[in-house]
Amino acid sequence: MTRYTAPVQDMQFLLHDVLKLSDSGLPGHDELDRDFTAAILDAAGQLATDVLEPLNRVGDEQGCVLENGVVRTPAGFKEAFEQVKAGGWTGLDCDPSYGGQGMPYVLGVATGEIFVSANLAFNMYQGLTHGAYSAIHAHGTDAQKQTYLPRLVSCDWTGTMNLTEPHCGTDLGLLRTRAEPLDDGSYSITGQKIFISSGDHDLSENVIHLVLARAPGGGEGTKGISLFIVPKFLVNEDGSLGERQPLSVGKLEDKMGIHGNATCVMNYDGARGWLLGDLHKGMRAMFTMMNEARLGVGLQGYAAAEAAYQNAVDYARDRLQGRAVTGVQNPAGPADPIIVHPDVRRMLMDQRSFLEGARALAFWAAHMIDKGHAGDQAAHGLVSLLTPVIKGFLTDRGFDGTVQAQQVYGGHGYIEEWGMSQFVRDARIAMIYEGANGIQALDLVGRKLAQDGGRHVMAFFDLVKTFIRTHEGNATLKADFLDPLKAASKDLQAAAMFFMERGMKNPNDALAGSYDFMHLFGHTALGLMWAQMAVAAQAMLDAGEGDAAFLNDKLTTGRYYMARQLPITATHLARISSGSDTVMALAADRF
Amino acid sequence: MTRYTAPVQDMQFLLHDVLKLSDSGLPGHDELDRDFTAAILDAAGQLATDVLEPLNRVGDEQGCVLENGVVRTPAGFKEAFEQVKAGGWTGLDCDPSYGGQGMPYVLGVATGEIFVSANLAFNMYQGLTHGAYSAIHAHGTDAQKQTYLPRLVSCDWTGTMNLTEPHCGTDLGLLRTRAEPLDDGSYSITGQKIFISSGDHDLSENVIHLVLARAPGGGEGTKGISLFIVPKFLVNEDGSLGERQPLSVGKLEDKMGIHGNATCVMNYDGARGWLLGDLHKGMRAMFTMMNEARLGVGLQGYAAAEAAYQNAVDYARDRLQGRAVTGVQNPAGPADPIIVHPDVRRMLMDQRSFLEGARALAFWAAHMIDKGHAGDQAAHGLVSLLTPVIKGFLTDRGFDGTVQAQQVYGGHGYIEEWGMSQFVRDARIAMIYEGANGIQALDLVGRKLAQDGGRHVMAFFDLVKTFIRTHEGNATLKADFLDPLKAASKDLQAAAMFFMERGMKNPNDALAGSYDFMHLFGHTALGLMWAQMAVAAQAMLDAGEGDAAFLNDKLTTGRYYMARQLPITATHLARISSGSDTVMALAADRF
Repeated sequence: MTRYTAPVQDMQFLLHDVLKLSDSGLPGHDELDRDFTAAILDAAGQLATDVLEPLNRVGDEQGCVLENGVVRTPAGFKEAFEQVKAGGWTGLDCDPSYGGQGMPYVLGVATGEIFVSANLAFNMYQGLTHGAYSAIHAHGTDAQKQTYLPRLVSCDWTGTMNLTEPHCGTDLGLLRTRAEPLDDGSYSITGQKIFISSGDHDLSENVIHLVLARAPGGGEGTKGISLFIVPKFLVNEDGSLGERQPLSVGKLEDKMGIHGNATCVMNYDGARGWLLGDLHKGMRAMFTMMNEARLGVGLQGYAAAEAAYQNAVDYARDRLQGRAVTGVQNPAGPADPIIVHPDVRRMLMDQRSFLEGARALAFWAAHMIDKGHAGDQAAHGLVSLLTPVIKGFLTDRGFDGTVQAQQVYGGHGYIEEWGMSQFVRDARIAMIYEGANGIQALDLVGRKLAQDGGRHVMAFFDLVKTFIRTHEGNATLKADFLDPLKAASKDLQAAAMFFMERGMKNPNDALAGSYDFMHLFGHTALGLMWAQMAVAAQAMLDAGEGDAAFLNDKLTTGRYYMARQLPITATHLARISSGSDTVMALAADRF
Repeated sequence: MTRYTAPVQDMQFLLHDVLKLSDSGLPGHDELDRDFTAAILDAAGQLATDVLEPLNRVGDEQGCVLENGVVRTPAGFKEAFEQVKAGGWTGLDCDPSYGGQGMPYVLGVATGEIFVSANLAFNMYQGLTHGAYSAIHAHGTDAQKQTYLPRLVSCDWTGTMNLTEPHCGTDLGLLRTRAEPLDDGSYSITGQKIFISSGDHDLSENVIHLVLARAPGGGEGTKGISLFIVPKFLVNEDGSLGERQPLSVGKLEDKMGIHGNATCVMNYDGARGWLLGDLHKGMRAMFTMMNEARLGVGLQGYAAAEAAYQNAVDYARDRLQGRAVTGVQNPAGPADPIIVHPDVRRMLMDQRSFLEGARALAFWAAHMIDKGHAGDQAAHGLVSLLTPVIKGFLTDRGFDGTVQAQQVYGGHGYIEEWGMSQFVRDARIAMIYEGANGIQALDLVGRKLAQDGGRHVMAFFDLVKTFIRTHEGNATLKADFLDPLKAASKDLQAAAMFFMERGMKNPNDALAGSYDFMHLFGHTALGLMWAQMAVAAQAMLDAGEGDAAFLNDKLTTGRYYMARQLPITATHLARISSGSDTVMALAADRF
């Protein structure tokens, strides 16, 4: 009942007219001209529309099944996975030394968005593998890289992250899984892990588990934790698969959504593992994977909203109910399409203005990562600061978008057959996993704000200030874009100042406002993105370049965001400024 | 995994210390002393905790099943329904002439909240029956009342509302179901209805369908629509059941939630129906049922949030993760309970401050209905104005509350076993049915605001103004309660003024802001409720009456609402004031 078309024109606008990739001076970027990226995005879009999207509902309905210790994925997943592999999509931005195509990360994000929009649960098998690839690439020995990376790049083997245990999620210092050293330098891993996405399945020959465990001598808390590579099948010297390890799927979770992905309880009963990175420094290695995963989850938030939005638009155009209050629009029909009604427009514009802004932020951050890889420390710092914002804000608002898209359908939105419920149920997980959004807010306010002496947040403020100063002579855009951005940025600075002044004396004053700060930051960042897009679009219109209709729509959508979404920064500031008194006043036993 | 305890103390506070029921001078209210209502609420709470709540997850897992044309409800529903009937709960506020207990509506709302919190889907069988009772009570002939009301009051027979058709939901003017007059004065009903809650099931001997259909001679649109009583089994002269009518369940819908309630496609193939109310005036009769249903759905919104909140509190007290930033709270344990963390508090206080305010609004509105029944036209007008606010605002925010409660659980919230997903999935429907919330906003701004020359909204503003004037000498409450209420009310008035000035010229300017206005109104109404509760609580504390701990918690929770929730009225006003330009600018084919 649903459909999906990749928003290639919008992506091309971001890559070439806003980020100006091929002029960026980054290694290899000069080859990324319009035709080249169009070919990639079109091909990804084709695969998404033809193969992945039709399996989205199949995955939801069938789910994964555990039978005799073996996990079966929904019908068609295996064949689709082979097509994704055959197209080379799994290694698009991976290191050519290990079979990757060496494209910039921003292209991986663009194609990732397309695949996620089409089938969120399916794409997780590949997404987590990419995370395992990154962790081994960053922290593995040469031998580990040679053994694992080519197979992870090709997705002949897939990867997982094993952090959570029944009694320990956010607070990893509590974890109990043990790693006992063996004579040959490997470890024997024993313990139970839960919520392991893609933990086992029938899509790959081997599953490479990255497992946090406690080796002797590391002490209590997170300090004593190390990261281990624990393959489902041992790997022989020649790279062939050896014996099955003593690790098993305890059960598959029955979840609200992402039914197509196998969420496993994993039991390790003396499985052999090899240390990845330094002993007792597992948290650092895991964070390589986790930061990437957090950006990927932020992407899931708006990618789900994109797919839901496209279907809501279709429905709003097709469904005939009532007449436009300003005069009949469809005289030949029994009623007007509901897209004529201002409140239906409001819902669609809310979704659209959010998700185009979110895409700009995700692409911009990915481009910063590419700059960081090329040695730009300031870019690296900005991404580090923005990672919790991208994860928390984009998934919260992305979920809201799916709920609004469902609302456009009225009663039909509640019926599973129409597919809108699945978007909502699938998008809901993104607010929770890879660090629940409250944890993102804590990371932002408790860690990232003050990181490196507050340098990164100052850099963000400078970026906004410089942008406004550069463009405030632009009379066409000043009132609609630059003034609202200035107001939002002022609210953000006031909130940061409040934390600085009050948070020192009472940390609760900062933490009670952390969630609002994350949203305040997210809105300001999207405001900046919209202002950047508006400047680019207006310049092209003035120069008579590009698709005028597209560029005018971009300005129209941006004006909506600035007028209707951005003003909420004032409310977030008001909440933050009220401090922690009302938040903490009620005794715990009086709730 | 979930539990529910009726919030009897909070209800008693509202009934006796805020609304002062027994002093209200309404007929029969002088008997409603504290002990009397406590006995009722305790008994309802017991039934909810012991019988209905344990069936909530059963209903979600098993759902209803259609086999050979017969709908079976989940295991245990039938027995529980018998217990509800045996306790006399189904007729609590019904007319004693037909077997009801003649209690005020406000008590029906209080017990209704309890039952809905415990099991939303289950309670719909009774809730829709009450709607059918009300419609027949208001519009039926004496014979119809004698035939149907006693059995609907007892729930030996249950009722349904049949409005929606595949091509026609909001826009009932499009409906096609036909009513052909028969010689004996009855009609032959033919057509298909969809989304019929409790459409068929095994809980009652007969199902009394109230069906909107088009009889000859009424013309096009909603003017030609009449309402008919169409029983599943014909009723003989002596009240016994006669032959099965030619009406059937086409299918059961597979829904996101409320699985325990049978949502049916109903096919009428020449079933006999009897006109209810006047010919071609069916919309008026249906609105009797619909207005009641809308208040009932508003109640579902916050009742679901209450149940979810109670479980989130339990989890936040039990789950040990991390340490309080201000110092260890649980030195004997491996970590502190997460309720120590400010952001977890924020989530719980958001839920709590909303739902206690929502309960106050629902009870206050119910009391206004009781006043209206006793002839108070102003009270009747206020309820009419507030009905869309109660339906739209309480269900939107109630859904948000369930999502927040789920978020408190982290990953466990996403696993069906823990029950939090069900609260979210069940609460979602309340934003959609009985008029999607966008329609409520349209009703509010397009109809209710200007109703009777705008008298009712002026009465609301007067109420706020008088309240503030009466209490602004109260130094303890002024800054925390009265000033924020004044600010919110000013925003609401400014928005109404904007509609008046701009909406005349361009109705889109009013409609584009209608949804924000509904929320602005809802927040202001809850602000008023909180200020009223604060005045009552403070007066009792000053007089040394009541449970001081409870009353102080009430003030604490109220302060949170005023400081952290109410400021959003400014954002709603900003959105409204931006008019419809950005909302309507994009051409329909450019979305």
